Amino acid sequence: MDFDGFFQSSLDTLKSEGNYRIFADLERRCGAFPQAGRHDGTAMQDVTVWCSNDYLGMGQHPDVVAAMVETVQSCGTGAGGTRNIGGNTIHHRILEAELADLHGKERALLFTSGYVSNWAALSTLGAKIPNAVILSDEKNHASMIEGIRHSRADKVLWKHNDWRDLDRKLHAVGDRPKIVAFESVYSMDGDIAPIREIVEVCEAHGALSYIDEVHAVGMYGPRGGGVTEERGLAHRIDLIEGTLGKAYGVVGGYITGSAPLVDFIRSFSSGFIFTTALPPAVAAAATASIRHLKASSIERDRQKANVAAVRARLDREGIPHLANESHIIPVMIGDPVKCRMISDILMEEWGIYVQPINYPTVPKGTERLRITPGPLHGAQEIDHLITALASLWRRCAIAHAVA
Amino acid sequence: MDFDGFFQSSLDTLKSEGNYRIFADLERRCGAFPQAGRHDGTAMQDVTVWCSNDYLGMGQHPDVVAAMVETVQSCGTGAGGTRNIGGNTIHHRILEAELADLHGKERALLFTSGYVSNWAALSTLGAKIPNAVILSDEKNHASMIEGIRHSRADKVLWKHNDWRDLDRKLHAVGDRPKIVAFESVYSMDGDIAPIREIVEVCEAHGALSYIDEVHAVGMYGPRGGGVTEERGLAHRIDLIEGTLGKAYGVVGGYITGSAPLVDFIRSFSSGFIFTTALPPAVAAAATASIRHLKASSIERDRQKANVAAVRARLDREGIPHLANESHIIPVMIGDPVKCRMISDILMEEWGIYVQPINYPTVPKGTERLRITPGPLHGAQEIDHLITALASLWRRCAIAHAVA
Repeated sequence: MDFDGFFQSSLDTLKSEGNYRIFADLERRCGAFPQAGRHDGTAMQDVTVWCSNDYLGMGQHPDVVAAMVETVQSCGTGAGGTRNIGGNTIHHRILEAELADLHGKERALLFTSGYVSNWAALSTLGAKIPNAVILSDEKNHASMIEGIRHSRADKVLWKHNDWRDLDRKLHAVGDRPKIVAFESVYSMDGDIAPIREIVEVCEAHGALSYIDEVHAVGMYGPRGGGVTEERGLAHRIDLIEGTLGKAYGVVGGYITGSAPLVDFIRSFSSGFIFTTALPPAVAAAATASIRHLKASSIERDRQKANVAAVRARLDREGIPHLANESHIIPVMIGDPVKCRMISDILMEEWGIYVQPINYPTVPKGTERLRITPGPLHGAQEIDHLITALASLWRRCAIAHAVA
Repeated sequence: MDFDGFFQSSLDTLKSEGNYRIFADLERRCGAFPQAGRHDGTAMQDVTVWCSNDYLGMGQHPDVVAAMVETVQSCGTGAGGTRNIGGNTIHHRILEAELADLHGKERALLFTSGYVSNWAALSTLGAKIPNAVILSDEKNHASMIEGIRHSRADKVLWKHNDWRDLDRKLHAVGDRPKIVAFESVYSMDGDIAPIREIVEVCEAHGALSYIDEVHAVGMYGPRGGGVTEERGLAHRIDLIEGTLGKAYGVVGGYITGSAPLVDFIRSFSSGFIFTTALPPAVAAAATASIRHLKASSIERDRQKANVAAVRARLDREGIPHLANESHIIPVMIGDPVKCRMISDILMEEWGIYVQPINYPTVPKGTERLRITPGPLHGAQEIDHLITALASLWRRCAIAHAVA
């Protein structure tokens, strides 16, 4: 077989559909975020980042930077092994204790990423609990889908955010171990699940509840414990999964839950056991970030104010965006080529970086710009963004209706 | 269902078999490696680490530490997004170019870990190449096994390191796209594959060759390009996978290969697309480490000398260890409880840290101590290790025969 020929023709198809991905080469500037440099091959351009998941700018917070620098200097750059074989340090232990406390759970377990935490936890639960069925919200993230697929447990999809449909499907499953997997804030539409109703349905059916809070931790709840904290529901959820790579500004993922649940995944999950631990310095930086956001709400308050400001200005300009309760503002384009073109013009002519979101991150036909205002965007930067978008909307004559 | 009861009873079974894992709480000391602190709950003990995968001590190398510190200070602690959405920086690009050069390939692609690189690459290739068959060495690492499983492609196991068996099985597969997956240095036995013969068999059958070099990169070959570099075979392998978390002393994984192959995985792999990029500072540290080990062979030479010294001393004391060509010295115990006991005595009474290696990392009945001498172990530390092991061997009356 001509492997390279096959690879190339698959890539050509992607390109012809407008779905080939071109990464922007950034240079993050600690202290200047959301300002950054962008290399275009020959020169460096100044840009404002409007699509980062460093939602609160914690990746440049002095406490977080200091914790990472000090721990690199005291412990070195890597962990040197798996958690079991030489890679476990007190910085990992301290972070796990901090995470368990954040969600009011008995224990927490670190993974190398949020993707791996979902994949490893769901694949372990689905594979190891005899006769388990996983009931998965139809819009769950790829990492959950892949974890469920990998478990080979029976899977039942329920309608997005529809707890009545979940109730019916749990009923239909009958007397088997049931796991209900869903998210709090959905990344690409920015909508928030009816968590209370879902939890009540889970309780009524004796199902294990599994929530992904990666787009919520740090940002919702008085201590940043996510939407489950904000709504006083964390104690009624069996497993809360989160990330250290978005609002906390570092990298890594985790789960929290009861001691037996977390110890079970620690003891049986291939994706946890057979991988090098995160660097101690990453763990220390994440701990500093979580501690700061447990005590400080300024970042969350400013983020909310800026999100509201951007939404109001978009409305005034008649620029369509999906309504939701979260910090994520999806400006719908509905065409991959147009979406890339708008993004390119924003970058080249306005110094605004908003990555086009195309398939497979969103379904074909729902391509969008996903704008994430943070606490560090200033009034002038918001003005500039709105001016640019309004100008483009006129220029490109984009339909003024939500896709 | 009583989920916690099920989890607890599964853990109780592990405990009764002696396979429950207890992590040692270390404190790495930058500049003092392989010396470290170890917390036992109340006090801190000084220990010598003899089981690290920071094989060359690069995790404390001044260039690597400086690169990480400087990049945290200039770019912040995290990447802030996936590679496609805001998380791609010039530090990632530079590292990928460095890795492609290391293996003499057109392109390289970073992943969050070596585990994820194997899992993502093999699951993508197996799932996307129509009618593919993956021929997998029977001792391949968990990350490869899980990737193949996830792909749902047909899988054929071939006898460990037996290229004749591979040849027969490739022949039996007939006219389908064939992928041959194997490792250069096998982590737990330390044996090295007959790569030339395997490559020739792959070429004869038109199979895509996929090698995992995670226990070899940095340590073998004049520039640290692994066993494939040492044996002049890199250009005949289609995909070389490696890690930044072992000899390079940081964290992360990667693949290298032709431009279409790497771009294909970049474009279609869920485990690459939907995950936050490694922090720029991790990428910069890894680049510094690779560059150092491309130019310097002192670390490799000293490691080889220390490995030879430990082996010779073990032989003199009659302590059984698996013979192999690599830097990994497996001292066979063959019982999980005994293995844990010896490890505990070494730690408590001698200040020597060698983690017991039990199931599922090795098959039941082949439990072992896995000793990894590095360039930074001194003559006194080697003396101390051998004295401790010799004393224990007498005391515990362990059979002096290789399992």
